[in-house]
Amino acid sequence: MARDSQSELTHRGTRTNSLTIDPSLMPTHNLDKIFAPHRIAVFGASDKRSSVGYSVLRNLIGTEFDGVVCPVNNKREAVQGIQAYPNVDALPHVPDLVIVCTPAASVPYLVHECGRAGVGGVIILSAGFKETGNDGAVLEEEIRVAQKDYDLRIIGPNCLGVLAPHRKLNASFAASMPDAGSVALISQSGALCDSILDWAQKEGIGFSHFVSVGNMLDVSVADLIDYFNDDPHTKSIVLYVESITNARQFLSAARAFTRTKPIVAYKSGRFAESAKAAASHTGAMAGADDVYDAAFQRAGIERTFEIDELFDTAELLARHDPPRGPRLAIGTNAGGPGVIATDALITRHGVLAELSGSAIQQLNSCLPAYWSHGNPVDILGDATAERFTDALDPVLNDEQTDAVLVILTPQAMTDPSAIARAVGDAAKQSSKLVLAAWMGGPSVESGIEILQAAGVATYSSPEHAVRAFMHLVAYGRNRELLYETPREVPISLPFRSANSDESKVSSIDDLTHVWQPPRTGLISRFLRHRSVQGQKLLSEQDSKAILTRYGIPTTRTLIATSARKAVHQANELGYPVVLKILSPDITHKTDVGGVVLNLRNDDDVKRGYNEIIENAKRLAPDARVTGVTVQPMFERDHGVELILGAKQDATFGSVIMVGTGGTAAECFGDRTLGLPPLNERLARRMLESLKSWPLLQGYRGRPGVNMDELIQTLIKFSYFVADAQEIQEFDINPLVATQNGVMALDARAVVDNEAATKWHRPFEHLSI
Amino acid sequence: MARDSQSELTHRGTRTNSLTIDPSLMPTHNLDKIFAPHRIAVFGASDKRSSVGYSVLRNLIGTEFDGVVCPVNNKREAVQGIQAYPNVDALPHVPDLVIVCTPAASVPYLVHECGRAGVGGVIILSAGFKETGNDGAVLEEEIRVAQKDYDLRIIGPNCLGVLAPHRKLNASFAASMPDAGSVALISQSGALCDSILDWAQKEGIGFSHFVSVGNMLDVSVADLIDYFNDDPHTKSIVLYVESITNARQFLSAARAFTRTKPIVAYKSGRFAESAKAAASHTGAMAGADDVYDAAFQRAGIERTFEIDELFDTAELLARHDPPRGPRLAIGTNAGGPGVIATDALITRHGVLAELSGSAIQQLNSCLPAYWSHGNPVDILGDATAERFTDALDPVLNDEQTDAVLVILTPQAMTDPSAIARAVGDAAKQSSKLVLAAWMGGPSVESGIEILQAAGVATYSSPEHAVRAFMHLVAYGRNRELLYETPREVPISLPFRSANSDESKVSSIDDLTHVWQPPRTGLISRFLRHRSVQGQKLLSEQDSKAILTRYGIPTTRTLIATSARKAVHQANELGYPVVLKILSPDITHKTDVGGVVLNLRNDDDVKRGYNEIIENAKRLAPDARVTGVTVQPMFERDHGVELILGAKQDATFGSVIMVGTGGTAAECFGDRTLGLPPLNERLARRMLESLKSWPLLQGYRGRPGVNMDELIQTLIKFSYFVADAQEIQEFDINPLVATQNGVMALDARAVVDNEAATKWHRPFEHLSI
Repeated sequence: MARDSQSELTHRGTRTNSLTIDPSLMPTHNLDKIFAPHRIAVFGASDKRSSVGYSVLRNLIGTEFDGVVCPVNNKREAVQGIQAYPNVDALPHVPDLVIVCTPAASVPYLVHECGRAGVGGVIILSAGFKETGNDGAVLEEEIRVAQKDYDLRIIGPNCLGVLAPHRKLNASFAASMPDAGSVALISQSGALCDSILDWAQKEGIGFSHFVSVGNMLDVSVADLIDYFNDDPHTKSIVLYVESITNARQFLSAARAFTRTKPIVAYKSGRFAESAKAAASHTGAMAGADDVYDAAFQRAGIERTFEIDELFDTAELLARHDPPRGPRLAIGTNAGGPGVIATDALITRHGVLAELSGSAIQQLNSCLPAYWSHGNPVDILGDATAERFTDALDPVLNDEQTDAVLVILTPQAMTDPSAIARAVGDAAKQSSKLVLAAWMGGPSVESGIEILQAAGVATYSSPEHAVRAFMHLVAYGRNRELLYETPREVPISLPFRSANSDESKVSSIDDLTHVWQPPRTGLISRFLRHRSVQGQKLLSEQDSKAILTRYGIPTTRTLIATSARKAVHQANELGYPVVLKILSPDITHKTDVGGVVLNLRNDDDVKRGYNEIIENAKRLAPDARVTGVTVQPMFERDHGVELILGAKQDATFGSVIMVGTGGTAAECFGDRTLGLPPLNERLARRMLESLKSWPLLQGYRGRPGVNMDELIQTLIKFSYFVADAQEIQEFDINPLVATQNGVMALDARAVVDNEAATKWHRPFEHLSI
Repeated sequence: MARDSQSELTHRGTRTNSLTIDPSLMPTHNLDKIFAPHRIAVFGASDKRSSVGYSVLRNLIGTEFDGVVCPVNNKREAVQGIQAYPNVDALPHVPDLVIVCTPAASVPYLVHECGRAGVGGVIILSAGFKETGNDGAVLEEEIRVAQKDYDLRIIGPNCLGVLAPHRKLNASFAASMPDAGSVALISQSGALCDSILDWAQKEGIGFSHFVSVGNMLDVSVADLIDYFNDDPHTKSIVLYVESITNARQFLSAARAFTRTKPIVAYKSGRFAESAKAAASHTGAMAGADDVYDAAFQRAGIERTFEIDELFDTAELLARHDPPRGPRLAIGTNAGGPGVIATDALITRHGVLAELSGSAIQQLNSCLPAYWSHGNPVDILGDATAERFTDALDPVLNDEQTDAVLVILTPQAMTDPSAIARAVGDAAKQSSKLVLAAWMGGPSVESGIEILQAAGVATYSSPEHAVRAFMHLVAYGRNRELLYETPREVPISLPFRSANSDESKVSSIDDLTHVWQPPRTGLISRFLRHRSVQGQKLLSEQDSKAILTRYGIPTTRTLIATSARKAVHQANELGYPVVLKILSPDITHKTDVGGVVLNLRNDDDVKRGYNEIIENAKRLAPDARVTGVTVQPMFERDHGVELILGAKQDATFGSVIMVGTGGTAAECFGDRTLGLPPLNERLARRMLESLKSWPLLQGYRGRPGVNMDELIQTLIKFSYFVADAQEIQEFDINPLVATQNGVMALDARAVVDNEAATKWHRPFEHLSI
């Protein structure tokens, strides 16, 4: 663990365990000045009711905030009846926090003044910066200079502000102050903050902190996650993001947080990046949003794909700790909604609790004869509050349940409010998670309020309840996996660039231990050796040569520049053979009829050679064709065809993809992404998430593949990917896995030497 | 069309166009007695406030219902102050409708009395029938006898009743009466009706009719769909079903309805039927819920998979006709929610409208400079009602938009109610569909009410709006496809059982024209000939023989009972060949090592024979092994492997499945179901919905398959399936499709002679 933490660097320096650390480099440095200030000044405070400067001052005063708030205004003696000061120097004390809501053009100077005066934190609400174009970006850059010069912490610009309900601090122009609670909300959209605050008021949801981050000139989502990790009030984070910057620090902070507390995130703009022309299958198949998925998963973040799902999950997080297990019992006064809840649960791979015999007996003794005699526990349409209590007691006490969803439909004899009180009481007396779905309109409203007041997360439909519940279950499952010890897989890497060319390590732990970023990369030297410059498609045999250096088996690949030479090479390898076109300009060889399989004799090879050359002339007339490669024919029928690839993502750096391979690969979209480095557990999870997992395990009489070697190959590939900053995209397609081992039958690298320096390397900071 | 209608029989007889029809056989016969009664009697009317008999009478009187309501009670002179009568004969007039809420045991006699007295319709609210077990089922059967004897129409038993808001008729024990509107609601869950009524009251949703169908002793969902098809008040149906009975009539009624008006359905119990042990891939892959999907699709019914999605869609149906096209414009006062809406739209394969140049120009002239300059139209956080109006006008008038979603977040300067009024006004002045998402809590509530009052469907999140919108779009698309003329595909069936063994038809229209249910089935005769009795697995060569009779090409299949004979047969066919085990007891041949491919000479064949026999002895020691079949090796590399299968579904009868084939078939779950018969359009839609559709069309240098012949094969197979009542399951796996044609390489039939009579044949009634 100590090793992990040490390796988890951030842009502000080492996270922990270092005695020489400069506190100003900590990501959470001086954030107390923003979230727990004593003295606050408001630049641009105003009496004009429609202005931001009015709202901010109004929100700060008259609450129970335990500090001093001073308006700064050089034209007025007082604002809203409060003594005003002309500038920061005129203030009676140096403020901890300054809130700026003056026009954009004035902000750089004011921030500079704050820095000079020794202010700790600044919240810039003003808009008109990089979100509006170049002129704004220039202003924002000027602020950044002041921020760095004076080591200021800045939230914004272009944000709604910050709320800290436990301190009664509303440093924003939001209309309302939520209750104090345990959820920290971080949002990249200010407008959405307004909606969430308004919704939270209706639902009675409380927050520990509420932050609109705006343009994130200084304080990032990652800084906030780190800060809230140490905050005793915060038990979970709800995150709305549009894009992540500084992925390295974000992943590191999120991973640290989710070890003990959940993060739920909605990421918008799933289709923002249009598909770029990609030179590899991996490039085409691993879209930017898919990489977010992989990164969130690696960081233990639960992602929701609907915004109301984020709200629903937030409501549950606000009211209860994650359940101790996945087994859900359903209690209902109507059969239909019970089935609806069951459908929702099973659709999301949840577990319908099986009630114990003793619970069933107890229910038999207190319920009418026609109750459902199982889970869902249908206690019938005429159920009273008393019957709900009677039924809940044995179900909550049953060791075979982890949580209970109570569903009510307002039938003729139903008293939704009395039942809400009964359920609220039962929930209070139990440590188990209780959720509710009160289905209807006006006649269930007061019942919903009663449940919410009793701390029971209550929904308008069983599906919403189940969906929120399943996010908590998934968080728990992920955390278990995180703490699971990976099985040791013997790894031998023929080459480790940072140490010696032939170092051998015997397990993944050793590997982690010896792993160092290479001082001079193997790939760089290889590419220099090949005189490869600029973006370029590497030949199949060069691509395979790289794999061989990393211990990944490839088929032997000889070159032939004529039909006669091809025959010679085929005899060298032994029949049957495969011919593939050799051209620096042809990316997808099968697309131009450039692959001929299963050639069994000299005549076949001659015909095959000519066929390939003619196809290329016809279908790719402009391509430079060197000849063909000759390879032994590998019997694919005996194995499972996979694609193993990598690409550089603009946000998260290197990404690994594994999926079902072959020509049809893209049709089925059976693939999964992961971030390097991988260990046994992570590599196995990637494979398990494939639809073809049963094929890999052995299926319908076919033997399973050599799983150890396949997992090893993924791990080796992940280390290659970590080394290979110059490799923009890489495909092994197919990688054939058999009972005996794995074999890369084809490989294709897209190289961008110049890009080598521009990618982040967040993987260095991912402990495995 | 006349032909279609004639063929659409129902259990009550011919739907239309017959002069000799007995009106009592019409599915809608006497339903007016229930939905438009003048005289109503209530059996079991009561003064006891907690009783159903109290609620029903209370609900019927004191509304503006324009008729006479009489309590029937043999112990009281009056109930709720209204003159009561001791029995049906004592009533001043014979009632049109009797509502029964007496204990279950009394109901059969009362229904008999009603029938004898000449009552037209009965609603039985009482519970305690088949839903409670055998005793109840016996009582229900007694009611059915009376129903048939007197040609009564009965709704229930075990239901909430019926509401007909346009007639101010509340013949139920539901607490509230919804507004009169255009949506007919049919629900198999009474409790859910309570929730929906309550919700509808909150949202201000109106209904034309509201029916809780209960146990459907007589009046079925299908009868109601037919009835509402003729009802001028009903513009759409919202359906909650748990299971369909009489699938034939249901499909026929739904298809007729959806030609002009939409049906949206939620079907619960998706996982109710546990997977049964299936003897074929098709059996394993085509679950009961998947068949519902196919049936709903064939009937033009839009299915929702969440109950609140049903509500959301109902709200939209209640407020607006389906849009004229799919192009959605989004107007918003915040960027984030605009992106959320776009994500939701694209996820659901919607179309983001591209604004015309002139619309952009108009927007430029009236919006602030920083507006988004495209769709979504972000009119910025300080947008007023006036700016919303200015922006909506050009967007609604743009010929390149079909509908507009307006999103509001309650920001500092926002007036949600004023903007609601502006949007409501704009919506009223446009024929285009306008939806709204007012995101928040208390501060948007009055705005939502204003929008709802103005007839604008309003949601709490953009996703809910988009999801409801997309159901209407999908309905429109389906309807277009329904009216599309199928392309003619030349079909030659070598055998039509009902006519002559060699009739040739030249197009699908001819085929439809000559199609008659076979008097004596080919399959029956074939099976008698083979002396096959009871459930049984048909041999590969018998299964292929059947396909051949239907004109589906199969590989030649010879039998060999020794290695020597296998060599002889291989020489007869020519090398390379395939050997497959021949055993009446082995279902999945590859599972027991029973298939050896690509044998190239006599020695290979001998070895292969012995290998297969030994594998079988080891892996299936109890199976009777006759020998092997010998077949020519078919080069699969040159084609796409499909699986084409059929099964008998307990609800919908014969079902056809087509999917990606090969050993991996079940992993990828790339399959689609359809109901026979198929025409060119339906067969093509099935293929188009496969993930492997690009492979079939030609992909990455591989040629496309012979689509005409593939479609023909599906059509031929669908006619075989229609013939083959004895075939319980059938697999062609693989069916290989190439550039040149298709070929069934393996076939497997599971036969159940005794089952032949028990399946419905809904396909006879599906016009294509």
